[in-house]
Order: sequence, then C-alpha cells, then structure tokens
Amino acid sequence: MPASHLFLGIDGGGSSTRAVLSDSEGRVLGIGSAGPSNPFSSGLEGSRTAIDLAVGRAFSTAGVPRAPAAGACLGIAGLVTPVQEQGLREVAENLSLGLDILIHHDLRIALTGSLLGTPGAVLVAGTGSACYARSAGGREVITGGKGPLAGDSGSGYWIAHRALRTAVKQLDGRLRTGPLAVAVLDYLGINKASQLPGRLHREGLTPSKLAGFAPRVIALAAEGDEVAASIIGAAQEALTAMVEAAARQAWLESLNLVFAGGIATSEPFGTGLRDRILKILPDTTFPSSALPPAGGAVLEAFMSAGIEITSDGVERLQDGLQSL
Amino acid sequence: MPASHLFLGIDGGGSSTRAVLSDSEGRVLGIGSAGPSNPFSSGLEGSRTAIDLAVGRAFSTAGVPRAPAAGACLGIAGLVTPVQEQGLREVAENLSLGLDILIHHDLRIALTGSLLGTPGAVLVAGTGSACYARSAGGREVITGGKGPLAGDSGSGYWIAHRALRTAVKQLDGRLRTGPLAVAVLDYLGINKASQLPGRLHREGLTPSKLAGFAPRVIALAAEGDEVAASIIGAAQEALTAMVEAAARQAWLESLNLVFAGGIATSEPFGTGLRDRILKILPDTTFPSSALPPAGGAVLEAFMSAGIEITSDGVERLQDGLQSL
Repeated sequence: MPASHLFLGIDGGGSSTRAVLSDSEGRVLGIGSAGPSNPFSSGLEGSRTAIDLAVGRAFSTAGVPRAPAAGACLGIAGLVTPVQEQGLREVAENLSLGLDILIHHDLRIALTGSLLGTPGAVLVAGTGSACYARSAGGREVITGGKGPLAGDSGSGYWIAHRALRTAVKQLDGRLRTGPLAVAVLDYLGINKASQLPGRLHREGLTPSKLAGFAPRVIALAAEGDEVAASIIGAAQEALTAMVEAAARQAWLESLNLVFAGGIATSEPFGTGLRDRILKILPDTTFPSSALPPAGGAVLEAFMSAGIEITSDGVERLQDGLQSL
Repeated sequence: MPASHLFLGIDGGGSSTRAVLSDSEGRVLGIGSAGPSNPFSSGLEGSRTAIDLAVGRAFSTAGVPRAPAAGACLGIAGLVTPVQEQGLREVAENLSLGLDILIHHDLRIALTGSLLGTPGAVLVAGTGSACYARSAGGREVITGGKGPLAGDSGSGYWIAHRALRTAVKQLDGRLRTGPLAVAVLDYLGINKASQLPGRLHREGLTPSKLAGFAPRVIALAAEGDEVAASIIGAAQEALTAMVEAAARQAWLESLNLVFAGGIATSEPFGTGLRDRILKILPDTTFPSSALPPAGGAVLEAFMSAGIEITSDGVERLQDGLQSL
C-alpha cells in the first residue's frame, strides 16, 4: 500500500546522495545521506546502492515504515543520455520509490529549488561548469557541462589548467616569470619545471585535484598579479558567454540567475562575475536560492502530483532542510 | 675485449627504438629496431629490454659478435630528470653497450643529426611539442615539452583540444555552428553533443588519439573554415613563441632551425609556420635535416671520442641510414 501523503526528493550528486522525505504540505519527516549516485562515476549498480541507502535512512529517521511514496523525484548529476535515464528509471521502479517517478538531471532540481519552479537559470561553476535555463513555457537549454576535456569553460579546472599552462611559459622563458609559476610548483609539491611531466603524467593529477588550485589563482588576482587577473577575467567572460547563450535560447530576456558551485559562489569571484553578466544582460537579477537541490526535487514531485506550492509549504521545507 | 672501432647510436623513442652500429668512419654495419624505450611510458625495465633487443639486432645484422663499442650514445624521448638519466646510465653500463656512454634526450640527438653538431634549434610538433636550441658554446635551452596537460602549445594535441572545445561551443549555441562541430562528432564516432561526456571520459580518449584529429583541423583551415583557420594560426603563433624564447636564451640571433614531428613537417602547416617565424626572427634559415636522430647519436659518440666529423663520414652515414 503506497504512503499516499509522502513525497521523496533525491539529490544524487557526484560526491554524495541526499534523500528528503516530506509530507504533501512540505513538512520534512526525514533526511538520509549516502555516497555518490552519479551513474557516470559509480555505475548504475553504485547508483542503486546509494539511492537505496539514502532513502532507507530518510524513512528510518522519520520513524515511518518504508513504502512507495506518492511521488518521487531523482535529480542525478551528470545525467545526459536517454539510456542513462531509462536505467535510473528502472532502478527507481525496482526500489519501489514511488507511484509517480521523475528522473531529472541535477541542474534542473537545483533551479527548481532555487527559484521555486519559476523561469530562470542556474550557473554552476565548481570543478566543472554548466548553465541550465528554463523558460516559462518549459523550454530547457544547457550550455557547457561536457566535462573537463571538452571545455567546462570558466570552471575551477579550466582556471587551474590555464594557470598551469601559463606557469610553464613563465618557467621556460616564453613569459616573464612571476608569482603564478611559484604558486603552481608549490601546489604540486615540486621544485622545478623539469619535474612537471613526472608529476602530471606519471603520478597523475585528477581533474578535481587540479581544480583545487583555482582558489589560489583567484587570490593572486585579488592581490594584484596581472597574469592571474587576466585568467580570472577570461573565466568570468567564458561563464558569461555560457549564461548569455542559455538565456538567449530559452527566450529569457529578463533573467533570474542563481549561482552554484565553489567558484561561482566565492568572493571576490562572484561579484566580478555578476558585473560582467550585467554588462551583457542588463535585465538580470540575482535572487538568493530558496531551497537546496533536494528541496527542488520535492517540489518537482509536488508539481507532478498537482500540489500547489504555497509560501507556507516552502517555509516548512526551508525549516526542515536547514541542515542541507 | 672492446670492439674499439665500433660506435653505437641509439634513438630511444616513445613508439620505437633504433640502434645503429657504425665504424669510426661512418660505415653503417648494422641497424636494429625494437619497441618503445622511453622510461616514462614503459619503465626502466621496458627501456632495458627494448635497448638490449635493438642493439642485439644491430650486431646480428652486422654479422659482428656483440661486444662493448668504443662509444655509445643513447638519445631518449622524454628524458628529463637526473634520476632518469642515472637509471638509464646504469642500464647502459649493465648491458655493456660501450666503454664511453653518453645519455642525452631525444631532442639533442635530433638536433645533432639534423645540423651535424652545429648550433641551431629543432622544433618538434607532433602529438606534443618542444623546441631545443644549442649555442656554439654549448648552451642548451628547451621550451615546451612538458606534456599535454602542461601545455605543449601548438602541438597536435593542443590543436585538437582547442578544436574540441570550440566545437562544444558551436554545439550548444555559444558560437554559430559550423563544419568543425560536424567533424569532431564524426571523428569521435558519435551523433550529438550529449554523447560527448561518455565518449571522452567514460570510454576515455588518449592524448595521441585526440591529437589524431589535428590533421582534419588543418585540412578544414585550408578549405577556408575561419574557425579552424584561427586555431591553426594560434598554433603557429604558439610554436613561434617557443622558438623565439629558445633562440633568445641560447643567444642564436642567426638561427638554423629544423622541424620535426608530424604536424610541423606537414603542409600547408609548415609553410605557414615558417612565414610566421620569419616575421619574428628574420635571420632564420630552414636547412633540411642531414641525418635522422639515430645518426645524430652516432655523431655524439664520435665527438665524445674526438673523432672529426668529415663530409665523407656524413655521406657514408646518410647512405647507411636511408632506410631510417
């Protein structure tokens, strides 16, 4: 027998999974966490395990016997292909998550949570980058988000990669040497340029480890290093181009834009980025995010069930999700 | 007992190893090949196996019993650290390659072979890129050559990577779509942009496979595609900057420059590159290469033994190395 007043919102990320169990009026009954459920990095079987664990924990903290919810929405990081979507739908049905099951990518539940289902866009810039825009009529556009090799312009990886390439030029005399070269060697734990190939290709460097250098580039730019400042300016310009293309294709002349991810939400990076976006898209506002992505997933499940989103309901979700 | 009139030149590359056995007057007695001996990719044990095999084959084609040569020179691709050099020296001593053993990187034997030991520079642009310059006084400078992640500006990898990033922008509306986007999807064997993350990061793409797309970018540029042409122009500019910095730091105001690698030696890329270099360094000449790298290694062994390099000796080496 389905628990017809229960709704599940699941934020399946690349580093963790969160499940939120809510009643139909937005009262958060339980929250559960587990490891990553992005099928891209952990496979469908890994997704299944993490989702099952997080949902089980949400039910047990709620003290409610596990049963199919009236509606369940999964927002999955890096979800891109119809094949992946079908695989996740089968996982969700197999786990009996809900009578009505929605599978979305993580950008969509982030936008829905941030803007409570109203039109607008979310710009994510952390290790990677992407912009997702949705019009009033439901038209969806994604720019970027194709991973480190294919671009992810303006992301932490992109900033650090450009800084690394610039540092190599400083170290071999193509550019005048400067603080960036010193900072790169220090970050990589080596003393000189000749150790770079071994450090980068033999020991290996994950995209997220390289991206971890981006905050130092931002700091150097803030301290007045012109080379770092030009990289940061180029990153902000690249992110602005992603927003512009997404907004244009989703017909959002007047744009509500929310930032997400460690780079876009850091200062002074965020302020510089807003300034640049306003030059290109002057009719842009930057509201603060109303709900975290898992809350957005609950809202998606509500909307699919025809439940109206009231300000009281949102407040209850905000109260219940303060810890997320 | 050492074979005191014999000299060994070894070109230890990332894809194959060639050993040349010569007498002290440049007569090529035997040539042997084996797999890669770059310790960076195959480890010191792999280097040892490949070098041993190639040298053994050179002696057996010569019909000469294997014995230590009077002088042996190894030129090893990607040789960068003193630790690697010491490891290779021990391998060479352990294999009793010669009484006098020289360990150099592959750029040095390429330059010595190309310009017969005279001052100048070699610019390599294939999958990777680097410029090596040597002055009359023996001052050596390397620019670039730090691997795909750290730059290798203007290389096949660099061209293809930039083309890939540009294609993604064409595919998601940041740039107007064009032939480059079509060519990238075709090369990767996929139909649409949404398949890119899976193709690039789940299936994986080696640097040399990605670099294999560069000739198509060069061809598109030659056919008049402006986007491809701007990438190719930027590559030529980046390679010019590598040459300029190497020549400047090696005090080579008047420069003999040789190209190596599949990109630099291809047309029309090479012609465009020469034009650009002449604008920055007008006193540059582009002699054709006299000897392949393995011949350069033989010359290094000669010079170390105090043997004069005569035009007759060079002609004999050229005759003997026509197949390389």
